[in-house]
Amino acid sequence: MTFGRRVSGGFGVFCAALIAAVSGATALRADEGMWLYERPPLDLLKERYGFVPDAAFLDRLRMASVNIHASASFVSPEGLILTNHHVALGSVQRLSSPENNYVRDGFYAPTRDKEIPIPGLTIRVLVSIEDVTSRIEAACAGASSPADALKKRNAAAAAMELECRRTTGLEGEVVALFGGARHHLYRYKEYTDVRLVFAPELQAAFFGGDHDNFTYPRFDLDLAFLRAYEGGRPARIEHYLPVNPDGCREGDLVFVSGHPGDTDRLVTVAGLNYFKNVTHPKKIEALLRRQALLNAYSARSPEAARRARTNLYFFANSLKSTEGELRGLRDEILMGKKKSAESDLQAAVMGDPSLRARFGSAWSDLERAYAWAAENEAETRLKGDMPGGGWGRLTSHALTLVRYAEEIRKPDAERISGYHDSDLPGVLRRLSSPSPTYTDLEEVFLADDLERLLETFGADDPYVKTLLEGKTPREAAREALSGTRLGDTAFRRELLKDAGKGIAACEDPLLRLARRADPFIRDVERRYDEHVAAVEEEAYARIAQAGFAVYGDKSYSDATGTLRLAFGTVSGYPFASTLVPPFTTFYGLYDRAYSFGDRDDFALTNRQRERRASVRLETPLNFVCTADITGGNSGSPVVAKDGSLVGLVFDGNDASHPNAFVYDERQARCVAVDIRGILEALDKYYDAGALVREMLDASRRP
Amino acid sequence: MTFGRRVSGGFGVFCAALIAAVSGATALRADEGMWLYERPPLDLLKERYGFVPDAAFLDRLRMASVNIHASASFVSPEGLILTNHHVALGSVQRLSSPENNYVRDGFYAPTRDKEIPIPGLTIRVLVSIEDVTSRIEAACAGASSPADALKKRNAAAAAMELECRRTTGLEGEVVALFGGARHHLYRYKEYTDVRLVFAPELQAAFFGGDHDNFTYPRFDLDLAFLRAYEGGRPARIEHYLPVNPDGCREGDLVFVSGHPGDTDRLVTVAGLNYFKNVTHPKKIEALLRRQALLNAYSARSPEAARRARTNLYFFANSLKSTEGELRGLRDEILMGKKKSAESDLQAAVMGDPSLRARFGSAWSDLERAYAWAAENEAETRLKGDMPGGGWGRLTSHALTLVRYAEEIRKPDAERISGYHDSDLPGVLRRLSSPSPTYTDLEEVFLADDLERLLETFGADDPYVKTLLEGKTPREAAREALSGTRLGDTAFRRELLKDAGKGIAACEDPLLRLARRADPFIRDVERRYDEHVAAVEEEAYARIAQAGFAVYGDKSYSDATGTLRLAFGTVSGYPFASTLVPPFTTFYGLYDRAYSFGDRDDFALTNRQRERRASVRLETPLNFVCTADITGGNSGSPVVAKDGSLVGLVFDGNDASHPNAFVYDERQARCVAVDIRGILEALDKYYDAGALVREMLDASRRP
Repeated sequence: MTFGRRVSGGFGVFCAALIAAVSGATALRADEGMWLYERPPLDLLKERYGFVPDAAFLDRLRMASVNIHASASFVSPEGLILTNHHVALGSVQRLSSPENNYVRDGFYAPTRDKEIPIPGLTIRVLVSIEDVTSRIEAACAGASSPADALKKRNAAAAAMELECRRTTGLEGEVVALFGGARHHLYRYKEYTDVRLVFAPELQAAFFGGDHDNFTYPRFDLDLAFLRAYEGGRPARIEHYLPVNPDGCREGDLVFVSGHPGDTDRLVTVAGLNYFKNVTHPKKIEALLRRQALLNAYSARSPEAARRARTNLYFFANSLKSTEGELRGLRDEILMGKKKSAESDLQAAVMGDPSLRARFGSAWSDLERAYAWAAENEAETRLKGDMPGGGWGRLTSHALTLVRYAEEIRKPDAERISGYHDSDLPGVLRRLSSPSPTYTDLEEVFLADDLERLLETFGADDPYVKTLLEGKTPREAAREALSGTRLGDTAFRRELLKDAGKGIAACEDPLLRLARRADPFIRDVERRYDEHVAAVEEEAYARIAQAGFAVYGDKSYSDATGTLRLAFGTVSGYPFASTLVPPFTTFYGLYDRAYSFGDRDDFALTNRQRERRASVRLETPLNFVCTADITGGNSGSPVVAKDGSLVGLVFDGNDASHPNAFVYDERQARCVAVDIRGILEALDKYYDAGALVREMLDASRRP
Repeated sequence: MTFGRRVSGGFGVFCAALIAAVSGATALRADEGMWLYERPPLDLLKERYGFVPDAAFLDRLRMASVNIHASASFVSPEGLILTNHHVALGSVQRLSSPENNYVRDGFYAPTRDKEIPIPGLTIRVLVSIEDVTSRIEAACAGASSPADALKKRNAAAAAMELECRRTTGLEGEVVALFGGARHHLYRYKEYTDVRLVFAPELQAAFFGGDHDNFTYPRFDLDLAFLRAYEGGRPARIEHYLPVNPDGCREGDLVFVSGHPGDTDRLVTVAGLNYFKNVTHPKKIEALLRRQALLNAYSARSPEAARRARTNLYFFANSLKSTEGELRGLRDEILMGKKKSAESDLQAAVMGDPSLRARFGSAWSDLERAYAWAAENEAETRLKGDMPGGGWGRLTSHALTLVRYAEEIRKPDAERISGYHDSDLPGVLRRLSSPSPTYTDLEEVFLADDLERLLETFGADDPYVKTLLEGKTPREAAREALSGTRLGDTAFRRELLKDAGKGIAACEDPLLRLARRADPFIRDVERRYDEHVAAVEEEAYARIAQAGFAVYGDKSYSDATGTLRLAFGTVSGYPFASTLVPPFTTFYGLYDRAYSFGDRDDFALTNRQRERRASVRLETPLNFVCTADITGGNSGSPVVAKDGSLVGLVFDGNDASHPNAFVYDERQARCVAVDIRGILEALDKYYDAGALVREMLDASRRP
């Protein structure tokens, strides 16, 4: 299971992958790459598979791909959307109540009128792409420093996004690719009326629980169906994926279209060492600390356990993923590949006076940046965000409100990142969200963050003094959260009126805390941007350009959360001295359940127990392929060469964590639900024949 | 799957495990130990499980345990024996013919008269045990050197074994325990009329093939039934194990009784480093070379493939096991345990003047011995055995015949090991065996061994010169094997007449080769015995005694192929970031088959395909427990606290290979067929209700 964006070492690097640099050769020899739709790997596909997808294939797949923060796809002309249960889980939770526990029991709307609107959910489809590199470069032309360039670039991108919405009615997004060496403007059509059609029981979707998360063989029905509406009626969709009831076979070439969140393949060896020695161990330590806190909180009451559950899943998920990445960073074979690729490119650059002059200092600039980051690690991590923030919602809301009130008064180009006019609709949407918040749970996090600040920097530290005002961390946290009204959506909306003029005067205790914290956080951010983020932007763009100069530019960019095309073959792999099969079947679901005594994370659902006699148990349930994916690809369709849908990505296996840095075909696999398993389950467990028919009928249209 | 004795690094060390030395503490904290029946771990069981097996429990389990080179047990009062299919496979093969392919199709005798006698198969039961340590010590009293002591000890043991047979009619075996610090005389009752009752299809027994060998989860029906006869009628057996149709549960305490072949737990860190750096890498290299040869041979014809199959299984099995051991030797946590245990014992010995005087030099003696072994590794390995021998039968027969003729003329005490009067029945049985031999296959091995000798030592080496007589390796191998009559059992029997007097004069070309090789081989053996084997015998006995002196003697001895008692709990384990279940089910068999497309090593049998509707698929098929086992335990019964049979050991998992040196409870597991799976399969797949009834009726007797 992959929850959105991968942990990226505590800061947001937009960097690019340059495959030639990664593989140390000009020709790719693996099913590698998260390719841009605007430069698909046609030569590579021809060479490896003798197959070249045509424009119709690519257009359909792109337009059928749905951005839902993670990934999804249209599977009928009537707006039917297939994604993962874990992607839709937040929505299912929001629609659930004690009487209608759709998380536990599942949900199915046999007719359109039973489909339930999901408040606050917006999805989008990538309609067109424009290369705006030269415009961005022009905007940065007179920059006085990397930090100034960063600011100018952000402002120019924000302006273009705003212009896009004004002139086309489409959402615009400027995407920095190849470490910032290219900028493309993506235009999206949005759908704001999305309804829940089907979700299985959480237990069926997440069979094996956290134990089996990020592993394979798997036996999960991690799927959900939504439907996009327009004007109160199902949206008419031209580009959708026809389901293929015959599925795929071992060795088949398949494509994966989705939104990988974040990879670090262009990161230098110095950066990887910084991850290995600093960010990843610290991240694991922090996650273990949060996990312990949350377990203690869970033990308070069943209601507390319910409130903590999503966070606990998230921590367990992040822990497995961060530990998996750390294993990769410590793997000498994998890192050896990175080292020799870096040496090769460096040697080529240093051996050519002109390349050396333009790009030669990039590596040493980054070395210095990472040395600074390592030295200032504790300050950046602990003082660089709102205490209690990140995981908790209210403390983040407080900081956002304070910043909104301040930034909105400045000219657009002067604002900090995230508060440009183009960002404001998103900011307002987040602040107005009716999602429930739990002050007791947030108090636990806030108190612990304040405690950590006190432990680390001492009571005399100016920031600590300002935050605590002489109280203990527990007292300060209690005061801020017990008296706050920010949990009330109506109150937050009220504060946003008049361009937030009331915020500065508001004496809400959590707002007061955020107001005291903000100058310190801004200072840490500013110094981090100057010493690290701006250097990275500039240096990685140069390294990417060096790669273009040496190897040519037939490459893919690091993941940026935008739409990508991956490809691979359906295939098992050797592991632990035996073979792991390409497919699993319903037999395996029952085996794993009864092997553990049919209980806890390995319990069957009542439907699975009662209806097993009617299920064709040899039906493929999950499968693996070599496509290059990462967090954010959850919900991606897997399609065959004829463009038909054969599977639904829901995870990577244990060996795929190091995909963050380097693709390795030996064991890393993308894990998908088989379309045959989906159809069989809908039909046999859920009596959802109408849904099956809608898809099959659509797949038979010309 | 565990084929008899474990690879022990190229030479036979009889050494002892001293658990206190291994764990570095006086109290055991794990389900560790291959315990002697004469000193069962009663205190440990009481402490860990609050359960003390009584004498009746232990006597029944010991007397129901059957030595069949590997392990087995009586499961009815009418001589019915349960063991593994892979233990009985040689017998099944011998009884098969093109018309009755019992290996492929399985075999079942629904009535006694259909049971087929297995020629040449003898089994035995351990009847009594006598401590003969003082008699052995007396015999060695006047020894002039370790090598002389070794010779005297072997001669004294041989004399006692002969005396045992003469006076009691029972087979005697003197067993060196605790590195030679103790010697016990074991007396066995033999059964020479053993018949085949039931064997499943090889494919059902060995489902998953070499891929799944030494792994878990598993789905194998690795079982066979034999029956012991006496006087032409089923043997009347007082001590048998009642089968328990309810099986066992997760967390249950269980016992395993069997014949672990060989462990090296007393081996010093110097010895383990010698294994890690020398013997194991060389062994793997040699196995890969043999495997490549044999694959090429297999490709010649279907008949060649058939002939090579058993050897190929054996090589693949040895490779996995040796590679697994090497992983253990390279595992810093495991080896750290060994190092600190050794340091602790050494510190205790060196800190006490009297202990230091008696035992202090043992470690440095061994260091010198292993240094000598490492230096002389190539010579020992390549010149220390008959070329083409070991794996091939005819070349071994040739050397045995030559040595038999020579040794038999000497007084018993002067003979080399393996040719004492007590050994002669076994020697003659092997030489008279009608097992088929394949000269073309043996020629491949012999030519390669000669080639390796030539490569390694050059054409001017006296041994190489003597063997080749100016020919190429291929010519020499062809000449020796194309002209030999040793493949003819009658000819070999003829040669044995008159105490082998005709052998010396016989001009059979393979005999001639063995005659030329023998003096060189004896020379290598003599030097190896002097510099290594004798030093080991002497030093490990002292280290064991040092352990007794420091920690007391409540310990178990290293495995010696004799009967041992192990215990453990039924439990899964964490692996590869998820959990491995304690049990598997028939569901899992079908899942794994269909996951791989129901073919090759993962094909179902026709019975499994056709009868799956009648099988209760949730029935446990295989399970794992923490009992401490190794190669030779194959076929061991797993019994519950009430003495009932709940399972049949057939393998160790991948993490159990390092059991050779150190037990590690975290992941190492013993893999067994569940009795419920056995009964279900007999009933549903094989219509063997009579067999099920025989066992169930017997289990209901008082």
